[in-house]
Amino acid sequence: MSSVEGDREVMRHSASHVLAEAVRELFPDARFGIGPAIEDGFYYDFELPRSLTPDDLPGIEAIMRRIVASGSPFTRREVSREEARSLFAAQPYKLELIDDLQDTTISVYTQGGFTDLCRGPHVASSRDIGSFKLTRIAGAYWRGDESRPMLQRVYGVAFPTETELKEHLEKLEEAARRDHRRLGKELDLFSIHDEIGPGLVCWHANGGLVRELIEDFWKAEHRRRGYGIVYTPHIGRLEQWKQSGHWEFYRENLYSPMEIDGQQYLLKPMNCLGHILIFKNRLRSYRELPVRMAELGTVYRYERGGVLYGLTRVRGFTQDDAHIFCRPDQIQSEVVGVIQLAQFMMRTFGFAKYKMVLATRPDHYAGTPEVWDQATKALMAALDTVGLSYEEDPGGGAFYGPKIDVKLADALGRDWQGPTIQVDFNLPQRFNVCYIGEDGSEHLVTMIHRTVLGSMERFFACLVENCGGAFPVWLSPIQARVIPIADRHVDHATKIEETLRQADVRVDIDVRSERMGSKIRDAQMAKIPFMLVVGDKEVASEGASVRLRSGEDLGLQSIADIERQIRSAADSRV
Amino acid sequence: MSSVEGDREVMRHSASHVLAEAVRELFPDARFGIGPAIEDGFYYDFELPRSLTPDDLPGIEAIMRRIVASGSPFTRREVSREEARSLFAAQPYKLELIDDLQDTTISVYTQGGFTDLCRGPHVASSRDIGSFKLTRIAGAYWRGDESRPMLQRVYGVAFPTETELKEHLEKLEEAARRDHRRLGKELDLFSIHDEIGPGLVCWHANGGLVRELIEDFWKAEHRRRGYGIVYTPHIGRLEQWKQSGHWEFYRENLYSPMEIDGQQYLLKPMNCLGHILIFKNRLRSYRELPVRMAELGTVYRYERGGVLYGLTRVRGFTQDDAHIFCRPDQIQSEVVGVIQLAQFMMRTFGFAKYKMVLATRPDHYAGTPEVWDQATKALMAALDTVGLSYEEDPGGGAFYGPKIDVKLADALGRDWQGPTIQVDFNLPQRFNVCYIGEDGSEHLVTMIHRTVLGSMERFFACLVENCGGAFPVWLSPIQARVIPIADRHVDHATKIEETLRQADVRVDIDVRSERMGSKIRDAQMAKIPFMLVVGDKEVASEGASVRLRSGEDLGLQSIADIERQIRSAADSRV
Repeated sequence: MSSVEGDREVMRHSASHVLAEAVRELFPDARFGIGPAIEDGFYYDFELPRSLTPDDLPGIEAIMRRIVASGSPFTRREVSREEARSLFAAQPYKLELIDDLQDTTISVYTQGGFTDLCRGPHVASSRDIGSFKLTRIAGAYWRGDESRPMLQRVYGVAFPTETELKEHLEKLEEAARRDHRRLGKELDLFSIHDEIGPGLVCWHANGGLVRELIEDFWKAEHRRRGYGIVYTPHIGRLEQWKQSGHWEFYRENLYSPMEIDGQQYLLKPMNCLGHILIFKNRLRSYRELPVRMAELGTVYRYERGGVLYGLTRVRGFTQDDAHIFCRPDQIQSEVVGVIQLAQFMMRTFGFAKYKMVLATRPDHYAGTPEVWDQATKALMAALDTVGLSYEEDPGGGAFYGPKIDVKLADALGRDWQGPTIQVDFNLPQRFNVCYIGEDGSEHLVTMIHRTVLGSMERFFACLVENCGGAFPVWLSPIQARVIPIADRHVDHATKIEETLRQADVRVDIDVRSERMGSKIRDAQMAKIPFMLVVGDKEVASEGASVRLRSGEDLGLQSIADIERQIRSAADSRV
Repeated sequence: MSSVEGDREVMRHSASHVLAEAVRELFPDARFGIGPAIEDGFYYDFELPRSLTPDDLPGIEAIMRRIVASGSPFTRREVSREEARSLFAAQPYKLELIDDLQDTTISVYTQGGFTDLCRGPHVASSRDIGSFKLTRIAGAYWRGDESRPMLQRVYGVAFPTETELKEHLEKLEEAARRDHRRLGKELDLFSIHDEIGPGLVCWHANGGLVRELIEDFWKAEHRRRGYGIVYTPHIGRLEQWKQSGHWEFYRENLYSPMEIDGQQYLLKPMNCLGHILIFKNRLRSYRELPVRMAELGTVYRYERGGVLYGLTRVRGFTQDDAHIFCRPDQIQSEVVGVIQLAQFMMRTFGFAKYKMVLATRPDHYAGTPEVWDQATKALMAALDTVGLSYEEDPGGGAFYGPKIDVKLADALGRDWQGPTIQVDFNLPQRFNVCYIGEDGSEHLVTMIHRTVLGSMERFFACLVENCGGAFPVWLSPIQARVIPIADRHVDHATKIEETLRQADVRVDIDVRSERMGSKIRDAQMAKIPFMLVVGDKEVASEGASVRLRSGEDLGLQSIADIERQIRSAADSRV
């Protein structure tokens, strides 16, 4: 961490103490949880006699500002465990933290009359805290444990200058406008229902169409690059997940088994094992390798209720998965091929900026260190071949092999988890996945697990937020809407609609007896790329006036020109 | 049943007794199960001191022929329960049957020295048994119960004349050649693995491609007809399946629930409930109805291990499902639309013959008789509108509404379960699925459940058997194979391959150093529609000699002509 970032973190941490001091002033009986600095800001968890509402935040902020202006010094004091216990005798959460502390000396920090259990460091004076704002209130289980009490968490952001704070708040507002959960509702894209269960997504017709267009493109591109596309079942005997090591290493993400005819079955958490069985279904010669097997496979993994979030943290998701079965001498060129495919996909979907992260051996792993080294070196060599720089994430690999993670930057500069490429020596060994070598005897294949979009759910969320719901023309559920101004224009408008539909444009028509302004506003809200307005002039000239969702007015055009324009926008995929 | 069919059934039943008599001659200690007539023939279940093999069948048949030629009379005798128990004292299965008989008089039939517990009737003399043949041996649990002993079942076919028997055996041979399980292996289409579990299908790249082409066609056609295509999760809270009535009425086909965060979840057996939630996600006006919502939804249902069969009886399958939410006055026109879509699909996939069956109100039903009448009349009126005659299946409807079932006839004249159209008054009521009527108040919608292919698995099996694996050009995984005769022809052959690939033909090339005859034989085995042979003559004229998989030789042609021909065959979908 740079020292600038370190300074900001200290300042944000101090702001959280000031927040706690302000809350105590309003609620003298408040019980305090923890209050760390986080990215861009801070939070503090409280147990309070009543629920806070957003209306409480300005009042709390006002007290904080007074404390900041007062220039209270932050002072550190080391105390014994006994002294700490007596200082926080009325604070059960603090007492629990004290009991869990391994340190022999315990430190507390005081500003104004407020003392908190804290390792520090902090700013010297409350005046050193920059510009801040409280942003929201959320529920948070004590220590993230759903069996413990639910506390109230107050979030804030803090920056050294007012300008930076303002910029950040504007970015937050823009992010809220682009929030895929909000746009998902506004554009009728998807929904999540308690009746089915949290983290389980229903894709509506609009969202489903965009997904299908992405999947069609994905499938065609994979076929072109020599992948075969398969389908495997969503359940399978538990036995295979024991053999693979998932039952041992990945149990907390697996659902409980079902029993069928006295056998235990598991909802699949990944697609690997079906692909291995297809590969092993017949003898494979070294000449057929690599075998590239892809699947848009829906998998189910347990995530705690508290971390579920829109389409980005879910319990069921469709991976754009593939496994490459290859000889060890093919690893590097295959990984290069995957990186190039991933780059092509990211470019097509409008993600120009991304960074590569190489995640290496974790503490808990399968296989030998030698084999891990070999795989890690192959990944590095592939990255070098493509000429990409990368960060390292030591210990961040999966239990069965090292991986390359790609983080996409969206239009607001936020990171999204993108493609993943993993080398696996574990499964081929556990399942004896072999090919017949040139020497006529059996050799273990190497498996490469990879996704280039990640999951349809998360990628779709990322896409929605990146374009703010204004999908590029090729992905827009409705590409053009014909808007007749009055009833006498409906005939001509319908003819235009029919002509464009014949030309495979996704088009609809708004024949409601509403004012034109309101029809245009609705089309704008639905983020339809082309609005084709039809009035007397347009009927006379057998054309339509074209308005883009950007607000740009392209004037009266012939139907042929309009069709060409829509087609060309769609074909260019921008 | 016609009396001709009745006579055949009696004759086939008698043949099963003769089979049992013959088996007893070979195995005096044989224990006998049951031996009924079935379609085209008969079987008998035995417990024997050793396993039979197909080699045993000619010997058994020879004894049967001797018995038939001997003209043994079949004589009936009525006996008391005690007498029956003493007659079959050494036959535990017969004793169990006797104990379960409700009748006060029990009948036995004797021919030659062989007496069997039997209600009859039988032929007068064994000479009245026509031409027969034993066809196969299979395992069968006593009374179909997997916890009871496995018996050996010997199957035979029997017809009044030798000619009919011969015709039937030829049809069986043809059916065996077309068996989708056999072709599934030969053409590398799919596999089922014990490691995953019985009845759970892995689609390989070839089968997956055909499935995808079918699905793409299906999706485009549905969009054209105003359907929105959605995706819903494969698991959901059990609670909703209790509310729907499935937990009560359909329990034996459901898998055991899983527990997630203290809630029970079920693998979905159908897609209805997700669609209802999407429909109810916002207010619906009478003006938006009908809402047509389709999904290629994979569902999981329990089937006993003994009835699982290839792709036709499975435990997980993808329905080409849709639900139409409409006003009662729209039922008829919507059903007409579904029938027309189904006809279009069946025609496209080469099923010219089918019959419609209208299944009406069962004894136990939901809703009022008036509403049932209305729905049944709407289905009849829809069939009349389309001008289709239909059979009635009185009382064959589901408890929640009447339905139309379509049975497809394949190239061998066998029936396959095809499209289904069901009107449902139950779910809208249970889930309060409403629209806002013209009067501004809430009204229950009517739901139409429908599939037009049934399931991808069964439809694919039907398609494979109907075309004997020789998929029409538009569905062939490989449409053309270029076959260079010698190494010096490979360059020109590769150019042809490249040209066709650019024209979106699915093409490959056979560059192995094999003889041309063997390359053609392999292409023929893979049922590739177009073989493009390239030798000196073809290189000189910059063309290829075209051979069809039918064996027809179309002679030397230009690449442009070949491309046109393949495209036109694909576009015509024949």
